[in-house]
Order: sequence, then C-alpha cells, then structure tokens
Amino acid sequence: MIKVVAKFIVQEDKIQVFKDRVVDLIEKTRQEEGNIFYELYQDANNPQILTFIEEWESQEALKEHMGTDHFQETVPELEDLLIEEMDEVEINIYKLFK
Amino acid sequence: MIKVVAKFIVQEDKIQVFKDRVVDLIEKTRQEEGNIFYELYQDANNPQILTFIEEWESQEALKEHMGTDHFQETVPELEDLLIEEMDEVEINIYKLFK
Repeated sequence: MIKVVAKFIVQEDKIQVFKDRVVDLIEKTRQEEGNIFYELYQDANNPQILTFIEEWESQEALKEHMGTDHFQETVPELEDLLIEEMDEVEINIYKLFK
Repeated sequence: MIKVVAKFIVQEDKIQVFKDRVVDLIEKTRQEEGNIFYELYQDANNPQILTFIEEWESQEALKEHMGTDHFQETVPELEDLLIEEMDEVEINIYKLFK
C-alpha cells in the first residue's frame, strides 16, 4: 500500500477552474482497480493550495494510473492554472511506517 | 472532518531516533476521542522525509490534541533532529473538497 500527497498551488483566480477540470479525473480514478482512495483537499488557511491525497494498492497500480487516458488528458491541462511549473509540484510517495 | 499533513525533514543520522521518539506520541494520539486516524509515513524516495497524515473530527479536536501532555512533551524534542527549525516544518490543515 502506498500513499501519494500531490500538492498543487493554484493561481488565485483559477481555483474554481482547477476544481472543475479535475472532477472527471477524480471520478474515473476512483473506478481504477488498484485505487484505494483518491481525494482532493483544500488548505483551510490558503485556498490556493489544492492537494490530492491518494492511496494505492501498489506502486504498479500508481504507475498504471499515470498511464490512463483520464490522467494523461487532465494533468497536463492543469499546468497553466498553477503558480509553478508542473515539475515543481510537490509530490511525495509514501510508505506507512506506523 | 479535517486532515493534517505535517512533513518533517529529518537529519540523515537521526531518522531512527525520530521514529523511536514518536512511537509513544502515535499510540497515545490514537486513543484521543476526536482522532480518526494518525499515521506516520516515510517518503519512498527520500528516507529523511517523515510525514504525519492525520484525520480529526474537528478543528477543536486537533486543538485539544496540541494541548495534550504527549504532544507538548514530544514535539519540542523533535526539533534537534530536523534539518529545519520547527516553525519551518510544512504543516497543512485540509478540508475535503471531493
């Protein structure tokens, strides 16, 4: 089991656009076999921070997810909504310690 | 319901010390009434990143947690294990969007 925290910092006037663009991604990802959960959170103190917290059965399941059409079509489109480049987005892949 | 992601970056030679010091904190926190879950993760690509992912019934439950003896006694002791000051630790408090 692995957990992913992917923290996007969105331009102030693009928050709703970001939310709208990921709805389909979220719904389709949740139907993927290896997905345990896939949730989008908003920082309570800074609405520009939108973070996916995800749980996957395995690294392979996550890799498959990143190859799906809904991922490939949606994620690149998010870049122009961010205050940073896509490769600067803070993504951590975690293993449970305790 | 709120989620907390608290990301600590630990000195390379202090990782096991950090893990040992938080075991008691984790066990006692999980017994707190307002706690839904409280888990410690290690980054799969950088073992110096140790991140608590927590879920609380409410902001009040989190506030109470931060006033408990086990929190007050443990967290300050973690500072000398980190590569950063305690107030630079990346802590996000999240609300579920979808």
